[in-house]
Amino acid sequence: MVTIALDAMGSDRHPAPDVEGAVLAAREFGVHIKLVGDETALKTELARHNTAGLAIEILHAPEVLTMEDKGLALALKARRKNAKNSMAVAIDLVKNGQADAFVTAGNTGAAMVTAYFRLGVLPGVDLPALAPVFPTATGSCVVLDIGANPEVKPHNLLQFAIMGSVYAQKVRGIANPKVGLISNGEEEGKGNNLVKEATPLLKESGLNYYGNVEGKEVIGGLVDVAVTDGFTGNVMLKTSEAVAKLLTDKIKEAVMNGGLAAKLGGLLIKPAMAEVKALMDPDAHGAAPLLGVNGLVFIGHGRSNSTAIKNAIRVAAEAAQAQVLTAIREAIANSLASQSHDEASA
Amino acid sequence: MVTIALDAMGSDRHPAPDVEGAVLAAREFGVHIKLVGDETALKTELARHNTAGLAIEILHAPEVLTMEDKGLALALKARRKNAKNSMAVAIDLVKNGQADAFVTAGNTGAAMVTAYFRLGVLPGVDLPALAPVFPTATGSCVVLDIGANPEVKPHNLLQFAIMGSVYAQKVRGIANPKVGLISNGEEEGKGNNLVKEATPLLKESGLNYYGNVEGKEVIGGLVDVAVTDGFTGNVMLKTSEAVAKLLTDKIKEAVMNGGLAAKLGGLLIKPAMAEVKALMDPDAHGAAPLLGVNGLVFIGHGRSNSTAIKNAIRVAAEAAQAQVLTAIREAIANSLASQSHDEASA
Repeated sequence: MVTIALDAMGSDRHPAPDVEGAVLAAREFGVHIKLVGDETALKTELARHNTAGLAIEILHAPEVLTMEDKGLALALKARRKNAKNSMAVAIDLVKNGQADAFVTAGNTGAAMVTAYFRLGVLPGVDLPALAPVFPTATGSCVVLDIGANPEVKPHNLLQFAIMGSVYAQKVRGIANPKVGLISNGEEEGKGNNLVKEATPLLKESGLNYYGNVEGKEVIGGLVDVAVTDGFTGNVMLKTSEAVAKLLTDKIKEAVMNGGLAAKLGGLLIKPAMAEVKALMDPDAHGAAPLLGVNGLVFIGHGRSNSTAIKNAIRVAAEAAQAQVLTAIREAIANSLASQSHDEASA
Repeated sequence: MVTIALDAMGSDRHPAPDVEGAVLAAREFGVHIKLVGDETALKTELARHNTAGLAIEILHAPEVLTMEDKGLALALKARRKNAKNSMAVAIDLVKNGQADAFVTAGNTGAAMVTAYFRLGVLPGVDLPALAPVFPTATGSCVVLDIGANPEVKPHNLLQFAIMGSVYAQKVRGIANPKVGLISNGEEEGKGNNLVKEATPLLKESGLNYYGNVEGKEVIGGLVDVAVTDGFTGNVMLKTSEAVAKLLTDKIKEAVMNGGLAAKLGGLLIKPAMAEVKALMDPDAHGAAPLLGVNGLVFIGHGRSNSTAIKNAIRVAAEAAQAQVLTAIREAIANSLASQSHDEASA
């Protein structure tokens, strides 16, 4: 049975959605869940649900990291040996082998820093990367990094590509994932210095490298994995969300102001619109993995509801079952071995 | 009367949409148009239209720059003294005062390079920037750079901010444009090194500086101008276009597969959807200015139809009438003067 350590104090309206999501996931997927947070609050919340036969236990953590936790103060809290906040306590369960994966809907920065300091990175990985899936015309694309590192070097992009490729393969079930390099033009030669220097590394990586990609290729579903620095990836993610919101808002507005016929039309297409909305809904994917740290870490939106938490637990459990961590460790080791072989024979 | 030099060999299906757009613009806005391109082809095309009373003339240019023109070969063609391609001939009309603005729907890279070499940059401007408007919840936002320069320095972003601000003021009629700096987080301190180093320059610029912005603020309409490097801006633009396409395609698909009620609903909301589509339509804005070169240059999509060409001529004529070039020259000069004053008093 997979065991998930859930930061039950993560979501904006914690602990209600977090606990409800845990109950739903335990019931639906048969996972074992360790709820970490304020014991009294969690007991009260858990008592609202029927938990008969479910493997849910509570672990007390008296402190909570909030949106206010940042900078050096956060780093110090993240590193402290006997940290008592719910993120650190839950991550330590993963570190000590008492849980297979960590899930939180808390402060993304706090979760990344705490995971980085407590778990460390995998051998051969320099920087971890946050890797959500984007909805595409044909399914989904893993995009990384979308915010862990605003500044990266070409070899970091190679590591992101290896990790994203393994993730797409193991968790999303894609046989030989196509990997794209996000750029300002599809043609080779287009790009900033980072892209130009990363291109030969990706070409020689042994990955199924597609070449430069733009929004058209990523959102159009032509690649399964797209790599970029955390600055560009974050701008891309936020822009996608904003455009989707603008468009649906404007359609609603036009329908409401379009007279009786348009209003009736709006009612009739409601199920179709709900379907499209579900497709674009980040809650459907639950949470994004932080790849590269030495443990499975999934970080969701602060505004996660119980469905989002449930889905986050589902993807975390799938990643644990698929042994993503071992696969990434091996893929990185193989890449390093082939690089040193190249150097030796050069 | 404003005179526009139109590269009539620009659009993918040239010269038909280019010539028709010119005829429409001459009729609707009373502008004088110099059609530049293959004389025989343009005469034939123009003869299809009723041009009685319109100020349209043809200037022969026997060569055309295509999508194949790039790199050093392009730079050499762009610089050649007696260049005979339609872009160079049309741009020289602006340079020599025989036209007030240049418009093309041709190869963006070729247009930028040709304009850069033939017109030069304004005093105090180091790099030109391509500055389209993005549709937003409240109107539109000028975003620059979206592709002229994948690598920029902090002081380039300051220049972009000044130029974008003048453009928003003069052409889009916004009194004191709010300027945002695109970043991976709204809070000050978030960003890559470029953003962090550009922040103090923008704060001290005397512009109506808003701070860091994400997609939410840009697309949400909280700022009138948003500055970034051409790499990030291009990724943002392409992602916006791709997400808008995905969403409208998926809605169409869901409506078509949603049974009779959904299909009827789809018919009833057609006018509302057309309204939304028009709002998101890049053709409505016609073309983006290349700000910073010493002349008015507008570059549109290759797939421009006659409406897009007409609108491109309209915005170019508006910019000429509003004396955007003089205003930018003055704003940059003032910024340089205040900087050297600061240095002197420091």
